[in-house]
Order: sequence, then C-alpha cells, then structure tokens
Amino acid sequence: MSRIVYVLNGPNLNLLGKRQPAIYGYETLADVENDCRRVGQELDLEIEFHQSNAEYQIIDWIHEARERAGGIVINPAAFTHTSVAILGALNACEFPIIEVHISNVHKRESFRHHSYVSLAASGVIAGFGTQGYQLALHRLARLISEAKA
Amino acid sequence: MSRIVYVLNGPNLNLLGKRQPAIYGYETLADVENDCRRVGQELDLEIEFHQSNAEYQIIDWIHEARERAGGIVINPAAFTHTSVAILGALNACEFPIIEVHISNVHKRESFRHHSYVSLAASGVIAGFGTQGYQLALHRLARLISEAKA
Amino acid sequence: MSRIVYVLNGPNLNLLGKRQPAIYGYETLADVENDCRRVGQELDLEIEFHQSNAEYQIIDWIHEARERAGGIVINPAAFTHTSVAILGALNACEFPIIEVHISNVHKRESFRHHSYVSLAASGVIAGFGTQGYQLALHRLARLISEAKA
Amino acid sequence: MSRIVYVLNGPNLNLLGKRQPAIYGYETLADVENDCRRVGQELDLEIEFHQSNAEYQIIDWIHEARERAGGIVINPAAFTHTSVAILGALNACEFPIIEVHISNVHKRESFRHHSYVSLAASGVIAGFGTQGYQLALHRLARLISEAKA
Amino acid sequence: MSRIVYVLNGPNLNLLGKRQPAIYGYETLADVENDCRRVGQELDLEIEFHQSNAEYQIIDWIHEARERAGGIVINPAAFTHTSVAILGALNACEFPIIEVHISNVHKRESFRHHSYVSLAASGVIAGFGTQGYQLALHRLARLISEAKA
Amino acid sequence: MSRIVYVLNGPNLNLLGKRQPAIYGYETLADVENDCRRVGQELDLEIEFHQSNAEYQIIDWIHEARERAGGIVINPAAFTHTSVAILGALNACEFPIIEVHISNVHKRESFRHHSYVSLAASGVIAGFGTQGYQLALHRLARLISEAKA
Amino acid sequence: MSRIVYVLNGPNLNLLGKRQPAIYGYETLADVENDCRRVGQELDLEIEFHQSNAEYQIIDWIHEARERAGGIVINPAAFTHTSVAILGALNACEFPIIEVHISNVHKRESFRHHSYVSLAASGVIAGFGTQGYQLALHRLARLISEAKA
Amino acid sequence: MSRIVYVLNGPNLNLLGKRQPAIYGYETLADVENDCRRVGQELDLEIEFHQSNAEYQIIDWIHEARERAGGIVINPAAFTHTSVAILGALNACEFPIIEVHISNVHKRESFRHHSYVSLAASGVIAGFGTQGYQLALHRLARLISEAKA
Amino acid sequence: MSRIVYVLNGPNLNLLGKRQPAIYGYETLADVENDCRRVGQELDLEIEFHQSNAEYQIIDWIHEARERAGGIVINPAAFTHTSVAILGALNACEFPIIEVHISNVHKRESFRHHSYVSLAASGVIAGFGTQGYQLALHRLARLISEAKA
Amino acid sequence: MSRIVYVLNGPNLNLLGKRQPAIYGYETLADVENDCRRVGQELDLEIEFHQSNAEYQIIDWIHEARERAGGIVINPAAFTHTSVAILGALNACEFPIIEVHISNVHKRESFRHHSYVSLAASGVIAGFGTQGYQLALHRLARLISEAKA
Amino acid sequence: MSRIVYVLNGPNLNLLGKRQPAIYGYETLADVENDCRRVGQELDLEIEFHQSNAEYQIIDWIHEARERAGGIVINPAAFTHTSVAILGALNACEFPIIEVHISNVHKRESFRHHSYVSLAASGVIAGFGTQGYQLALHRLARLISEAKA
Amino acid sequence: MSRIVYVLNGPNLNLLGKRQPAIYGYETLADVENDCRRVGQELDLEIEFHQSNAEYQIIDWIHEARERAGGIVINPAAFTHTSVAILGALNACEFPIIEVHISNVHKRESFRHHSYVSLAASGVIAGFGTQGYQLALHRLARLISEAKA
Repeated sequence: MSRIVYVLNGPNLNLLGKRQPAIYGYETLADVENDCRRVGQELDLEIEFHQSNAEYQIIDWIHEARERAGGIVINPAAFTHTSVAILGALNACEFPIIEVHISNVHKRESFRHHSYVSLAASGVIAGFGTQGYQLALHRLARLISEAKA
Repeated sequence: MSRIVYVLNGPNLNLLGKRQPAIYGYETLADVENDCRRVGQELDLEIEFHQSNAEYQIIDWIHEARERAGGIVINPAAFTHTSVAILGALNACEFPIIEVHISNVHKRESFRHHSYVSLAASGVIAGFGTQGYQLALHRLARLISEAKA
Repeated sequence: MSRIVYVLNGPNLNLLGKRQPAIYGYETLADVENDCRRVGQELDLEIEFHQSNAEYQIIDWIHEARERAGGIVINPAAFTHTSVAILGALNACEFPIIEVHISNVHKRESFRHHSYVSLAASGVIAGFGTQGYQLALHRLARLISEAKA
Repeated sequence: MSRIVYVLNGPNLNLLGKRQPAIYGYETLADVENDCRRVGQELDLEIEFHQSNAEYQIIDWIHEARERAGGIVINPAAFTHTSVAILGALNACEFPIIEVHISNVHKRESFRHHSYVSLAASGVIAGFGTQGYQLALHRLARLISEAKA
Repeated sequence: MSRIVYVLNGPNLNLLGKRQPAIYGYETLADVENDCRRVGQELDLEIEFHQSNAEYQIIDWIHEARERAGGIVINPAAFTHTSVAILGALNACEFPIIEVHISNVHKRESFRHHSYVSLAASGVIAGFGTQGYQLALHRLARLISEAKA
Repeated sequence: MSRIVYVLNGPNLNLLGKRQPAIYGYETLADVENDCRRVGQELDLEIEFHQSNAEYQIIDWIHEARERAGGIVINPAAFTHTSVAILGALNACEFPIIEVHISNVHKRESFRHHSYVSLAASGVIAGFGTQGYQLALHRLARLISEAKA
Repeated sequence: MSRIVYVLNGPNLNLLGKRQPAIYGYETLADVENDCRRVGQELDLEIEFHQSNAEYQIIDWIHEARERAGGIVINPAAFTHTSVAILGALNACEFPIIEVHISNVHKRESFRHHSYVSLAASGVIAGFGTQGYQLALHRLARLISEAKA
Repeated sequence: MSRIVYVLNGPNLNLLGKRQPAIYGYETLADVENDCRRVGQELDLEIEFHQSNAEYQIIDWIHEARERAGGIVINPAAFTHTSVAILGALNACEFPIIEVHISNVHKRESFRHHSYVSLAASGVIAGFGTQGYQLALHRLARLISEAKA
Repeated sequence: MSRIVYVLNGPNLNLLGKRQPAIYGYETLADVENDCRRVGQELDLEIEFHQSNAEYQIIDWIHEARERAGGIVINPAAFTHTSVAILGALNACEFPIIEVHISNVHKRESFRHHSYVSLAASGVIAGFGTQGYQLALHRLARLISEAKA
Repeated sequence: MSRIVYVLNGPNLNLLGKRQPAIYGYETLADVENDCRRVGQELDLEIEFHQSNAEYQIIDWIHEARERAGGIVINPAAFTHTSVAILGALNACEFPIIEVHISNVHKRESFRHHSYVSLAASGVIAGFGTQGYQLALHRLARLISEAKA
Repeated sequence: MSRIVYVLNGPNLNLLGKRQPAIYGYETLADVENDCRRVGQELDLEIEFHQSNAEYQIIDWIHEARERAGGIVINPAAFTHTSVAILGALNACEFPIIEVHISNVHKRESFRHHSYVSLAASGVIAGFGTQGYQLALHRLARLISEAKA
Repeated sequence: MSRIVYVLNGPNLNLLGKRQPAIYGYETLADVENDCRRVGQELDLEIEFHQSNAEYQIIDWIHEARERAGGIVINPAAFTHTSVAILGALNACEFPIIEVHISNVHKRESFRHHSYVSLAASGVIAGFGTQGYQLALHRLARLISEAKA
C-alpha cells in the first residue's frame, strides 16, 4: 500500500488562526501543514497537503489520491454537512479515510451535527484542535502498516 | 426548435465504470458518450456531451444550452439532492429536460430520495443503467418533433 | 428466461385520455395497449396487458406472472403510494420489474413522492407520457436478453 | 345537469347501528337509505344508494356516476384516510362531491384527521350523525340548481 | 333546553362578500344574518347573531350563551387554528356546538387543517358556502329537540 | 361463547414457503392450515381457515366471524400497516383477537413497525415462525374458556 | 424593590369553580382572590388581582406592573400556549415572575405542554390547585426580600 | 392610488427604547413616528401612525386602510408568528404591504422564524433597526407611483 | 472604517431580466450595477460589484472584502439555502452584512424559507425587487458612519 | 393516611451547592434536608430523606414508600427525562406525588422539557430553587389532610 | 445446545399482581415463576428465573446466560423502551431470545411502542398476559431442539 | 493540575474482544488497559482504569475523579445515547473530557448518532478502534500541560 497521504482542507480553512479564535484557535494552516509534515516524517508518510474553497477541487484531489495514495485525512469544514459529491468521491476510494474537525461540532448549531463524510470515513476525530491532524496521521500509519502486513 | 441536445453529467461520473460496479456497472463515461452520439445520429440530434465535478460548470453549460439547444439530458449525480442553483438554471430554460440516474436512487439511502432537479424536469428515468441516457434521447427527440409540429 | 411480459395498470387508468388531459394526455389505455403490442412485436416480447381498479386483481396477476413471465411493466397509479401488498407480491418475483408513471409524480402533491413499488423495481420512469411504457419494454428486452446470455 | 345523485358508503357501514353505537348511533344503513330516498324525493333528486367493503367497487360506482350523475355524496369511512385511488376517481368527476362522516372524526385518533377525499370534495360534513346525509343532499340540490341556472 | 341559539362569527367576517369572492362568495354577513333569522323562525329558534374581530368578545359571548342558550353555531374564522382560549370557553358549555367554515379549509394552506374548535364541537361543516349556517341550524334544532325529549 | 375460531391470512400468504424463505421459512400455507386444524382439535376449537389477497374479503370474513365465532387469529400481512378498514371490522367484534406475524416485523423496514390491527388485538405474536399460529390458538382457547367460566 | 405584586389571570378563569370541576376544582376566582389577599397580608405584599379574557388587557397590566410592582404571579390559562405577545411583555420586566397552572398541564393534551410564558418566568408551579397561587406568593416574597438585601 | 399610508405597530412596541435595548435599540416609538412623518413628507405620503397591544385593533385599522389607503407598513411584533386573523385582514387588501422587523428575527428563537404576515406582504425587511420603517416607506412610494403610472 | 462595499451576487443572477420576469422583473444585472454605483456615489461608498455561479468565487470575494471593505451586500440567490461555506466566510467578517432577495422568498417553495446567510447578516431585505440593493446600501452607509463615529 | 413523606433525590444532587451554582445555587443537599425536616415538623410530617445516583435505588425507595408513606416529593434530576422505570414505580402508588426541579427546566436544553415523572405526579414545581421542596411539603400536607377528612 | 433458559424480568415486575390489575392482572411474579418451572419441566428446560429493578443486574445475568444458557425469555418492562445497554448485552448472545410483554404495549402510550430489545429478539409476544411466558418457553424449546438437530 | 486520568468504560465493554469482532475487534479490555498504562507511563499520566455495567457506578467514578483527577477519557458505550445523568456528572467537572468510541458510530443505527456525552466533552474520537484510547490520552496530556503552563 502506498505511503502517500493526502491531507485535504475545506473552505475557509485558509483563514485558520485569523478568525474566531475562540472556536478555531491561533494556529494557522501553515502551522498545521508543518506539524503534518513533521509527523509524516516520523511515521514515514509522504504528505500531500492542500486547501481549497472549491468543492470540485477537493473532489479532484480525492480522485487523484485514489490513484496514488494510501489514505486521506480530510477536514471537510463546511462541506461536511452539505456535500454529497465529496461523499461520492470518498466512496470511490478503497483505502482508509480519517475525518478531522478542529472544534467539537457536536456542541455547535444542530446543522453541524450531521456529516455526509462520516458515511465514508473509517474514523472521526473532533474537538482535538489542530492536534487532531497529527493523531489522524498516527491512525493512518497504523492502518497502512496493518494493510501491508 | 433547435436539434442540439446537451447531455450533462455531474460529479464523480468521470469515474464511471471504475468504481462501485455493483451500483454503476462496468461501462465508462466514454462508452456512454459513444452510445449517445450513435443514438443522436439515428434521431438526427446533435449531441453536446460534458462532465464536470464543478457545480458552476454545469450551471454555465445550462446557460449556454438555453441559448442554442432544444433540450437537456442531465445526470446530476450528487448535485441532484443538494443543488438549488442547478434547479435555478434549469428553471430558466424553456425546452424539455430529462433527468437520468444510472441506479434506482429510490432503493438507496434516504438522502438520495429527494431531487431538486425533478422540480424542473419533464421526465425522470432511474435504474435503467447507462441505457437510460439513450431512452432519454428518444424522449427528447419526440418532444422536439412535437414542439416543431 | 421467458419472453412473456406483463404490462399491469392500476386504478383509474381505464379513464386514461378521458380525464385531466393536462396531466395525463389524450391517449386512451387502448392506444397504450396497441403501442405496447407493436413495440412488443419489434422486440419479440409477448405482451399480457391488464388494467384493474382492484388491488387484489393486480396482486393475482403478479402471482401469475411470476410463474410464467420474464418481466413486469407496472404503472401502479394510486397504489404506488399506498400498497404494501403489491410490494410484497413484486418482492416474490425474481425477474426485472419496471415502474412507469405517465406524469412526473415528483412535481405533484407530496403524498405522490413516495413509492412502495420502487423498493422492488429495478427501474423507474416518470413523466415520459405514454411513451414511458414503450421505453420500459425496451429496457426489459435488454435485461431479458442479458439474463439469457 | 343530471339530477341523479350517488350516495356511496365505504367499508363496515353495512354494520351501521349494530356496532359501537356510542360513536355511530342506532340507525341502520337501511334507515339512512330510506331517509335519503325521502329527502331525495322532496328535492327532486334520484338516489343511487350503495355500500361496499371493496375499494374497487366504490371506484367503479364513481366511474359510473361520472357518466350519468349530477353529484356524489360519499361517506368513505375507513377509506377516507388511506385511498389515493378513490381520490383519483373523484378527481375525474366534474360535478360537486360532498364528504360525510357520521362522527366528528377530528375528535378521534390522529390517523382519522387526514382525508384524501377532502382534496376532491367541495364540502365536508362531520359529526352530524346520519342527518349529515340529508343535509348533504340539500347542499347538492342547491349546487345542481345553481349549475343549471 | 333553551331555544336561543348564538351564531358567532370571527375576525374579518365583517368583510364577507367584499373580499376574495372566489373563496368566500358574494353574500354579505347581513345576508347570512337574514338567512339565519329566516331559518331560525322556521325551526322555532331565537337567533343571537354576532361578529367580532376581537377574541375576548367571542369568549364573552360564549360565556353569555352558556347561561341562556341551547346551542352555538360558530364560524371561528382565523381563530379556528390559533385560539385555545375559545376552545376553553366552548369546553365550559354543556349544549351542542356546530363549527361552520364557508370554504373547504381542508383544501387550503396546511395551517388551516387544524382546528382547536373541533375538539369542542359536536359537528363540523365546511365548504357549504353560507348555506352551511342554515344546515347547522337544522342540526341544532334536531339536537335541542332530542335533548328536550 | 362459541368455540369456532377464524384463522385469517392476508395478501401473498398463498405464496408461503415459495418465496423469500430466509424471512418466511419453508412451510406452506397448507402446512399451517394442517397445524392449526390439529391444534384446534386438541383444544376443542373449530377452525375456519382462510386466505385472501383482497381486503374486502378479509373484512367480509371478519363480519361473518362476529356473528358466529368466539375469536379470530389474524395474520394481516401487508394489510397490517395500511388497512384502517380491517381495523374497523375488528373493532366491531367483541371476542378476543390475536395478531400473528411469522417474522419479527420490528427488525424489518420502518414502515412495518406500525400496525393498525394491534389497536384492536388483545395480543400480538411476531417472529415465532408458523408456530405463532399454534400458540395464538392456545391463547384463544384459554380466553374463550375464561369467558365461559 | 416594590412590595406590590400583580396576580394576573387569563381567559375563562372568571368561570373558575363553575366549569369542569374535575380539572379545576370548586373554588371560584373570588375565593382565590381572597386567599391571595390574606397570604399577601401575612407576607406584607400588596396584591393587585385581575382577570381578563383579553390578551391586550393582560399585556397592559404587565406594562403597568413593570412601572410599579416588585413581581408578577400569572396564570395565563389558554394564553400560556399561544401568546408570544405576553411573553414579550414579560420579557420587558426585570422583577421575578411566577407562572401558575391550577391543573397539571403536563398530563393533558399535548398542545398544553408548551408554554411561552415559561421562557420569561423564574418559576413554574402546576397541579397544586388554587393553593399554587399562595405558594407562588411565598416564593415572590422571598425573592423580593433577597433582592432588597 | 391613494397616497395615504398606514404604519401599524403591534404589541409591546409602545415600550420601544425602554426595554431590551441590545435587541431593539434606544429610539422610542415617538422617534419612529417622527422619522416616518419626515420621510413621508419627502415622499409626498400621508402617514397614519398607530400602535396597539390588541390584535382586533390592528385588524380594524387594516380594514380602515383598505378603504382609504394606498399601502401599509406593518411591524406586527409578536403577532407576526401567531395571528392568522391579521393575515386574513391583510389578504383582503389590494395595495402593497411591507413587513418590518427591527431586529433580525432569523437569528433569534426558532418560533420567530415563521411569519404569517409574510404570506400577504410584498416585501419584508428585518434587522435594519428603526431605519427599516423609512426604507419601507421608500419602497411603498415607488410601488404607489408605479401603480399610478 | 473602510467605505468600500462589496455587492455580491450568486448563481443565475447573470440571467436577471432574462428569465421568469413574473418573479424577478425586467431589470438586468447591469441595470442593478448601475443603480448601485449611482447610489454609492450619493452615499460616498466605493462599490465592488460581482456575480458568480461558483460558490468558491463568492467565498474568495468575501475573504478579499474582509481585508479591505467596510460592509457587504449579498444576494446569495440559490446559495442562500444550501451554503454553509458562505456562512463560514461571512462569519469571519467583522463589518455589517446585508442580505438581499429580489423576490419575497417567504411566499415561495418551503426550501426557500431557510437561509444560512441570515445567521451572519445584520439585516435582511426581501421582495423589494432590485430596489432592495439600493436600500441595503443606504443601511450600510448609516452603519459605517455610526461605526466611524 | 400515613403522615410519612419520602423526599427522594436523583443523580448528581449529592453535588448540590458544589457545582454550577448559577443554575443550582449554593445550598447543599444537607441544607435541603434540614429545611425539609424543619418544615416537616411544622406540618407534622415525618420525613424520609434520600439521594441516590442509582435508578434502582430510587425505585426501591418508591416501592418502600408505597407500603408505608402518605406521599412522595421527588426531584428526579436527570432521571426526569429518561426513566420510564421510575414512572412505572410511581404509577403503582396511590398517594399524591409532587415533582420538584430546582431550576426552571423549561428554559434549558430541549431534552429537559419532557418529563416522564409528570405523568404520575399530581403537581410539579420548577425554578423555585431549594424552596421548592418546602412548598411541595406544604402541598402534600394539605392533600394528606384532605384525604384524611 | 444448553437446555438452561434464563427468564429475566425488569423493573417493577416484583409488584406484579399488586398494582394496576386492569393492565397487569392478578397473578404475582411468584405465580409466573411457578408456571415457568412447571412448563420448563414439561419441556425439559432448566429455568433460571430472576427479577431486578437494576439495569446492570439484568445485563450481568445476560452475560452469565451467554456462557451457560441456550436461550433467554426477557420481559424488559420499562427498560424495553430506554435501554440500549440491554440491547448491547443481548446482541452479544448467539442463542434465541424471546421478548415478552404482559399487556399489549401497542395499545398504550406512544413511548411504549418502540422497543430496543426487539432489535435483538427472534420473537416478541405481547398482550398474552402471564401466559406469554409459557408460550415463549414453548418457542424456545422448539428452537433449541431444532438447533440441536 | 493533577496528572491522574480516569479511563472509564461503559456497559458490555467487559465483553470486548469476545463479541461482534467485526465491529469491535479482537482486543480485550485487559489489552486496552495495558495499552493505556503503557501510554500513560510515556506521558507521565497516572491511569485509573474502570469498567462497569452500572450507570451509578460510572457516575460515582466521575464524582471521585472531579476531586482528584486532571481529566477523563470515557467510552460511555450504550450510555452515550441515553444517560442524561452521566452528562450531569461530567458537566460538574472542570477538567477536559475526551469521549472515545471504538467503532464509527456515525455509520451505524440512527439511535447511535446522538451523544449526550458530547455536550460535555472537549473532544470526541470514533472509529479508531482501541487505538482511540491512546490518542485520547495524548490529547489529555497536552491539555493538562497547557493548563499547567
């Protein structure tokens, strides 16, 4: 199984660290990328890190990943609750998918309680701040190793 | 009435024949395009065949079609259930619209039971596999001929 | 696989062409039967064409069909939305079933949006007028041929 | 406009006066028929009075009525809440339809609060006991006279 | 039992015959009052006829009626769907209550399908135009006579 | 109290043992009838055993039973969930009624979770296979004996 | 803080002791007023006791109270469930509000389970009969004393 | 078309500027009236400005307006969500109606999200503070001028 | 505070004036832009006027606006009801946002009654035709001036 | 009737006064017990005061009470909303039951609005702080005395 | 397969025969135990008969049963409707489980219509009084015998 | 802040590794405890590891933890969806709480989609198998360290 992992970030995450810090904290997306690359190196995973405000772009990256990656970490942000198309793209993947939310979405508005992405994810982590990305990579590393074995 | 027909395909249909064959079969989108062109020729329809993972692209093609086409066959895929914007674009067309789904969506998850596109379509065909496209063209051909008469 | 096809019509379809032409058009059920017989001949299908206002009669025909037919085309009309018993009869069949609605039921009152029959049908066609019957026969012909092969 | 009026009675009304008198009273269906014939004579209406436990039979009588009657009084009983097929038959009629319920259905179980028949009826009368039939005939007589004028 | 009958009319009925005649017809409330008085005379009922746009006024008349009347005919108009207070007043009455609606409320917006007043009424008549008042009086006359007997 | 017991079977049960054996088992309705007759003999009950795909026929048998039987065992099959008319017929009976389902309906599709018949039944037994009929007869035998005493 | 307390009573409470004694008991509103005055004297509270069937009158008293009182005891009766306007008036008050219901509304019809007034009340007491008023005054007395302290 | 415009204000708006300034601001209703008169003068509109806590009073003013005005600006306050009677009165008007809310009701409790008045209004403006009244008058001025033309 | 105002228009608004004039009127988007520029000049606001059928493009403009503008006027069109992502972008802005709808969405299909954008907007204006844009600018001008002060 | 009264307290009430004082105040459960004993003495009631985090323990105390007590005061805390078993135990008691909540549960999360216990209670008191217990004892004292009389 | 059968009884069943006899009859739980032991002997089943008001105790018995029994008869009483934990314990068992309710729960309050236990049970019997236990044992005996064969 | 961490496990988790391995895997709870102790040592956390099938026991441990621990990891199992009492206990804690589910509950039955515990948790991790516990400890370690700093 490929050790490439796509880390995909949905809309408005380019503003991370710059808006609503009470909910999302002070770390920027560049900080998150650095953390992921560092942890990736520790776990011998090659990281493809992307962010987009466009649903089609996320879908295209997922299609790309299914050709060459061994897993996806995705923080779908607002698309979590509305995108059946991203669910469709993820359903076409055969490797493990981990869904990450920086805040605990279950404590927020009720429209944030439903996730289409969870229907395709093997695991979901929410409310761990940006540390959630790192733990998601740890999980993927183990799943990829188990699949290899 | 124009004999140009747009055949529009929504997100993830570029993967047709490559994912979940139990649901979607083994034919690729290129096969579908060939089938449509062949049937189009038989019915004297000029086929504009497109696929996109981007909602705006689908909308732009619908806007284009309303200027120069006589009908639309659309498989909105995941956008079926979520896109009020595509509904808006279709509502702006005055020619017949046929909605196609390869699988019988009524047997799948409940969020696939509702279609915004159906509110603008004159006809809906689901669960006919890729043959649905061809039958949709037969329907359009008749409607265009009747409108002409 | 048998090439006999039952074409079953539910309540009030005996009035076809005589009521609400804005919804159902001007063709009578006899016209539909003629169309089906003609298309059946082209496709080498033997047509058993029936209509009844009685649910039990439809069920009995389905039971009969499961002994001797290779497929069913059914326009369940009002029973679409209310008959679990017809669903039960169809579930007992092992050949393909196509559900036909003359009008696009998805655009009408909300109680017409749910279909018990769709849970047993392989395909559904709605809003194609009486042409829907013919296209349904085309679909069945292909499915029967594929099953044979 | 024809002065023939069909008075149609749904399932279990053959037991009228014999069951649950607290809800339905002590008059039998024969008493109701007599009352209707007497009032019909006063109003110069020819009464066709029927009861059936079979939905298809009610539908057939409605189809018959639409050929030769000037109005329908219908107590659909249990079919009120479940029969889209009877609604379909009534929708095919162009004369006035009056819906009668012996008890005040709005005070009973919630599944009795919805009526498909009301969607086709010009008037509804409930909780007037068997007198409701007579008042319904009075209403029809006026509507037929106004239509004539 | 008293032969006085209150005929109570809710908000906007003072405009009867002057607004939305497609729904409410061309007769004015004065016409209705005249009809009621004439029918009352035939049936030996003394009519107290009132209209108000004020809920409290309707309640006060109901309280008055419970002291001196033998029945109430009420067209609660818009209060039908919203006034628990009028329901409370009617629940305090021990004589029969007939609810009248000029139009068939069951065919109109869904918020018009629920009636608090029906929970206290012995009978409901809807869609009989202004004739509904007269038939309601006929019903009351019979109920009062039976109670007397 | 009469020792005649009607055992009534709803639509599609004539196919018992011939369809979907994973749900309904391999015993035919004739087997069930034999079992019932044998157990009836043991319990000194006279068995009237019937099946129909027609709702009106079931209603007619219930009406017949209320004249001459001491209890009903009914497997309403698909009518369980849709027939207010059968509920009405059962409500007119004064003897005990036992509702039987061969499979555990509570584990199946959600539209199978609601039963109109349960509102009239004194007991319900589901998921006991065809043995449920026999146990229902045991229950009726006791209830009839207690009523006699 | 003012020691004046308004005791406000909603529609139909003028009939207290005269209707539905199984629910509301035999005490009249005059009895309640006397009880309140007696308890008020014990607690050194000046009682303004009012009843109205008019929502606007209740609102006006609340407006008056917010200028000169230290608390409100309100039995909104039927307005509990329907009056957003009374909620608005109460929200404009800065002193404590106690909501009283004579019967246990939670055991009655479901439309009585929701209270707009509770959104503004500091406390709610239901099913204590007319004693509820007295205990509400005890509560207010303590809250006013604590606020003073 | 008449250039008289009624500006109607619902319950508790007499407290404007005196309660919950975080929601409703510091301007009083007298300030609003002055603003409206000033803007009216600019736009050559004659302003009838009223407030009442009584629903019937609002209804009476609407009835008065339909005889002599060219439009209504209404801030129905709490009646927005509960008054079918005010909807009825507005439906009887043939001139344009503008609905005003000082706060953005869509951000507040869910029972404030539904408006009966919107069903009769040509336009709705919410969350513009008291400036909303002025902009509503600008809209009415244009609509009246266009109607005149 | 910046006097730059972004006026953003969602999908299909490029067709304004060309489709469904009964709903949207005859003015084109270029007309609206001209109106906005003229009013902007009067109010000393610099207008950035944009339209897109792509959700990501709207999001990008909002991100741009939050760096350099003092307010946003947004007609989200179909995205109103479906885009949590646009809500997220708007929530990241600290200046006032006005939501505009040309038609009164509250009178149309029920899926148009919910707006995600309203959760971030300070004000909402609907059904004012294209004049709504101009009044929205008037509102923004006042809010920017007040913020400055 | 026995003058023993059980005062039962549900889960987490052992933390009273130690957690979330904004909701529950500063008094401890020992304080409440002392208050109850003091008031009990005044009213000549013998108090059995208990708290448990275990549902079965509460049930056992209720069973014990039904053998020897004359009433129960219960603050079911979190069990209010979830325990059908406690409802069952209370339904087995024939003496009066008073339900107490320290906070006004109707103002809190929606899952706190439903109470199973209310279905068995004669009275409910909420939002009276710990004083609610004392007033509940006053109510019980009166009910026991009346029952004795 | 083991011939040991656990008969487990949920909360308040220790009061059987002592409370609400109209619903639960006059037999005590000791009577039920005796009946079960007698029937067990006839069927060569060893009976472990238990009752508890504590959910954890029921769970522990189920865990014990899965080690040594061949089936479970469970009357979960109030836990039927609320205990996902008991469902979890039953799901861990591989032998047949029969759910018993003494009364016909489908006729009682709506919160009694849903059963978590039914999701794990092979059969459900309700409204057979205490005889239901005996018939459940008959069912288990057959299932154990069939499994052995 | 204390470095003691409670790891609490809800009902049926004592069966871990022994039931439904397709959902829960093959590791036993003892394995999980060992893993936690090992990771705890690495992170300098003192682990209190407990499991119980009794809700009250979980509550008691939470109460104990709030006196002496710096955080809780809780896998509430079936109590996740039903226990308001555990939510209450957790709400009384001021340190961070992490909720763990071994399987991805969002993909399972709909009653498993709602969690009361999430309302008190700072983070939630689901579908990470037993590795979820370890990652939860990593999260707690960081939160405790940050709180210390």
